[in-house]
Amino acid sequence: MDYRLYYSPGACSMAVHVVLEEIGAPFALHEVSVARAENRQASYLAINPKGFVPVLEISGEPQILTELPAILAFLAKRHPEAGLLPQTSAIDEARVFEWLAWLAGWVHGVGYGGIWRPERFSAEDPSAHEALRANGRRVVQEAYKKIEHMLGDGRAWAVPSGYSVVDPFLFVLYGWGAKIGMPMRAQCPAWTSLSARMLERPAVRRVLAREGIAIE
Amino acid sequence: MDYRLYYSPGACSMAVHVVLEEIGAPFALHEVSVARAENRQASYLAINPKGFVPVLEISGEPQILTELPAILAFLAKRHPEAGLLPQTSAIDEARVFEWLAWLAGWVHGVGYGGIWRPERFSAEDPSAHEALRANGRRVVQEAYKKIEHMLGDGRAWAVPSGYSVVDPFLFVLYGWGAKIGMPMRAQCPAWTSLSARMLERPAVRRVLAREGIAIE
Repeated sequence: MDYRLYYSPGACSMAVHVVLEEIGAPFALHEVSVARAENRQASYLAINPKGFVPVLEISGEPQILTELPAILAFLAKRHPEAGLLPQTSAIDEARVFEWLAWLAGWVHGVGYGGIWRPERFSAEDPSAHEALRANGRRVVQEAYKKIEHMLGDGRAWAVPSGYSVVDPFLFVLYGWGAKIGMPMRAQCPAWTSLSARMLERPAVRRVLAREGIAIE
Repeated sequence: MDYRLYYSPGACSMAVHVVLEEIGAPFALHEVSVARAENRQASYLAINPKGFVPVLEISGEPQILTELPAILAFLAKRHPEAGLLPQTSAIDEARVFEWLAWLAGWVHGVGYGGIWRPERFSAEDPSAHEALRANGRRVVQEAYKKIEHMLGDGRAWAVPSGYSVVDPFLFVLYGWGAKIGMPMRAQCPAWTSLSARMLERPAVRRVLAREGIAIE
């Protein structure tokens, strides 16, 4: 095995799972269910004290790699033949990092973090959680408008120069939009088309089947 | 001019300012004071609708580049002669991205975001702000213990293989710790040594003088 991925079904770790399938290197999976709070158990905190998924174990490397943007960038770089990072220019590559930082830090961190994990922002005071959830929803709605606007200029993928590690992450976030009740097809037609293109990829179909997730 | 940096004195944009000085390429500065809320003014939102600093304008590139990790990675890549990104292996480079994602998304975003910008997480309900501030402080304190622990293994810089774009960001965060009243020298001796090494760098001295910031 070249890699071992610690993942939770349907979590942002699914983007890494897709990328591993795209690359085709041998990898193992280790499920850490966030729904069952397995990521907060001592056995997992001993592996990743941050308590998040994804985690990537790399053959020959003693330390795990954490942080979704870092894992995606690492895999894309180490497997250039998979074509998951633009080779065209430094600025095209920077656009990938710009997307990843914003999607991970703002859309996932502040938006979905507020909706699904308000205790991250107010561990001691649950009375703040309702306001945090409402604010998270507002952040997600505004961000989704922006994403749809960006994708609506005719590009096929997040970075106009081609398919990249951003697209599997966008695909996961598309599914999350539907999950929180956003009318994705009606409000985000360009993003719906991108997701339909994702669904045509064998790597994506294998991952959805294995994680038991439906995104339509 | 090769670059124009939109910055606020002492903000995380100072890390980019240091990197530009290290590189030595011609650049211009445009101040957008967060303290005076200039980043929320229509004139700045027309440049960066996200309303954050830093923003990098790149000569010959029609679109601005946003997101601190993306800007730092871009500058390091485009100027390899400055040696701001490990050239040794894909995993060493990934460690840089791992640091940047965690420092930007968690330590800055969730920690200092909670302390200084609670309205980001609860725009409509100011009654939650006190809990958010307290939680942000707890996040920062735990993260700073972790950072000190990592730096305490004898490494000179954040990534053991050498100085990188992570270090100017760590230097900014060191100053923020003192700003919120943390006893940095007493609690974070390894980080204090790293910051002392930063203060020896002419690029860093020029930036502190220009932004009018003292970090000791």
